[in-house]
Amino acid sequence: MGRVTERRRTLRIRDGAVTTRPDTLVAEEPLEIRLNGRPLAITMRTPGDDFALAAGFLVSEGVLGEGSEVQSIVYCAGATAGGVNTYNVVDVKLAPGVVVPDITLERNVYTTSSCGLCGKASLDAVRTTTRHPVADTPPVRVTPGLLSGLPDRLREAQRVFDRTGGLHAAALFSEAGELLDIREDVGRHNAVDKLVGRALTDDRLPLSRAILLVSGRASFELAQKAVMAGIPMLAAVSAPSSLAVDLAVETGLTLVGFLRGPSMNVYAGEHRIALKAPAGEG
Amino acid sequence: MGRVTERRRTLRIRDGAVTTRPDTLVAEEPLEIRLNGRPLAITMRTPGDDFALAAGFLVSEGVLGEGSEVQSIVYCAGATAGGVNTYNVVDVKLAPGVVVPDITLERNVYTTSSCGLCGKASLDAVRTTTRHPVADTPPVRVTPGLLSGLPDRLREAQRVFDRTGGLHAAALFSEAGELLDIREDVGRHNAVDKLVGRALTDDRLPLSRAILLVSGRASFELAQKAVMAGIPMLAAVSAPSSLAVDLAVETGLTLVGFLRGPSMNVYAGEHRIALKAPAGEG
Repeated sequence: MGRVTERRRTLRIRDGAVTTRPDTLVAEEPLEIRLNGRPLAITMRTPGDDFALAAGFLVSEGVLGEGSEVQSIVYCAGATAGGVNTYNVVDVKLAPGVVVPDITLERNVYTTSSCGLCGKASLDAVRTTTRHPVADTPPVRVTPGLLSGLPDRLREAQRVFDRTGGLHAAALFSEAGELLDIREDVGRHNAVDKLVGRALTDDRLPLSRAILLVSGRASFELAQKAVMAGIPMLAAVSAPSSLAVDLAVETGLTLVGFLRGPSMNVYAGEHRIALKAPAGEG
Repeated sequence: MGRVTERRRTLRIRDGAVTTRPDTLVAEEPLEIRLNGRPLAITMRTPGDDFALAAGFLVSEGVLGEGSEVQSIVYCAGATAGGVNTYNVVDVKLAPGVVVPDITLERNVYTTSSCGLCGKASLDAVRTTTRHPVADTPPVRVTPGLLSGLPDRLREAQRVFDRTGGLHAAALFSEAGELLDIREDVGRHNAVDKLVGRALTDDRLPLSRAILLVSGRASFELAQKAVMAGIPMLAAVSAPSSLAVDLAVETGLTLVGFLRGPSMNVYAGEHRIALKAPAGEG
């Protein structure tokens, strides 16, 4: 439980020279997420923060919107034939009165029974499902200079990456640029779910004043997770996909990509980027 | 259909200077994969090679093992309310007599009904499910020098990456270092599924003489896909996870990570790496 790294024997080849030594690898293990005892999904994740991961996953899927809806989160006990808990199965029990939604075992909420599946349907599903529409009361507003400094702060705060090279990182920053939380995982979506799940159990949803920074690319799935948690701004070190941009435009999310030093591209929601010193704004 | 890139208006900020221009992004759209008309999974993918993606997904899940088991692969027609095909739903019909396996809607084959889910169970599931155990008749055997040259050839062959920065690439090479096939996708698992699915429909499974190279990290899922297709060697430009290494050790897969110029780490199956010029081998 909670092993973030593991060591394995490795043959190192460097310019023809061969040596054998242990190498530190990012740990990857399956996690089964259950809802009221019913298996819902399996994700390959880095052990640790598993309750947050399960809670955040359920926020992303539209099941949970606030902490009071959770009665308990536990590891299933009596796991293996030998009775040893593997700590790889988490059960989330909803509070009394909370309706268990009719979600399928499918990873994605936007399944469809017709043949009309398309990107637009995916966008509509997120827009109509979110419990925390992006709000501007008043708008979060940050300068390019503030954004420029965030990736370095993310890397400094990454404790495991330097050793394994195998982890994605996601962090929440305040609009003043303060690092609020950071999570690392072998799966980028898991890192974001862990951030959001922790915020849920701490009763900090919606994250309406936060900036979500991810170490890699911005896919539809990551933009979806930001929207479901009420986050107004998603910044990525690398490229966004077309559907991530479309979702941002449709839901009012600010989407920044290729955030590298003083350079960045703003794909949506540019009203939250202070291109000049705002005059007379609150 | 088949749009690999799309253009979106972008605000570019470079050292304080702001310009507006169109940016080329990697296209991302949902694809629903059906088996004999029954919805099985939805994956977010880059359009193109959708039939190969569906076929390769079914190889990875243990449903398909050879091309003759497929009767047809078609786009579902009559898609949207307006009757326009979205080309985002693919139905794979199995040949008569092929048993439709009892797989769940779950993305992963190694679901469990007990609480004993663990990495070991995931490894066992792949090892016992694969139709194409890694064979050494005789072993594929390549030099570090040959491996060193592959990542540059992958990058040269990537047509879209330079424009969007948003695509993962996967390629198959022969043991002589010849590029056999390459696919790019917003999801790294999709790129591998597209390679494997194409091989299935071309009756080239198992890929027992091929090297699979991926542009990023080597997760359990990618190692699983290699094993299910009978590929004896997986090389990754970046880090492997612990469970990918464990699966490689357990199934006999050669796993190379951090393949960068003359440097690489060999995590499993080192008997296929020719550290000296082999003397008198066929």
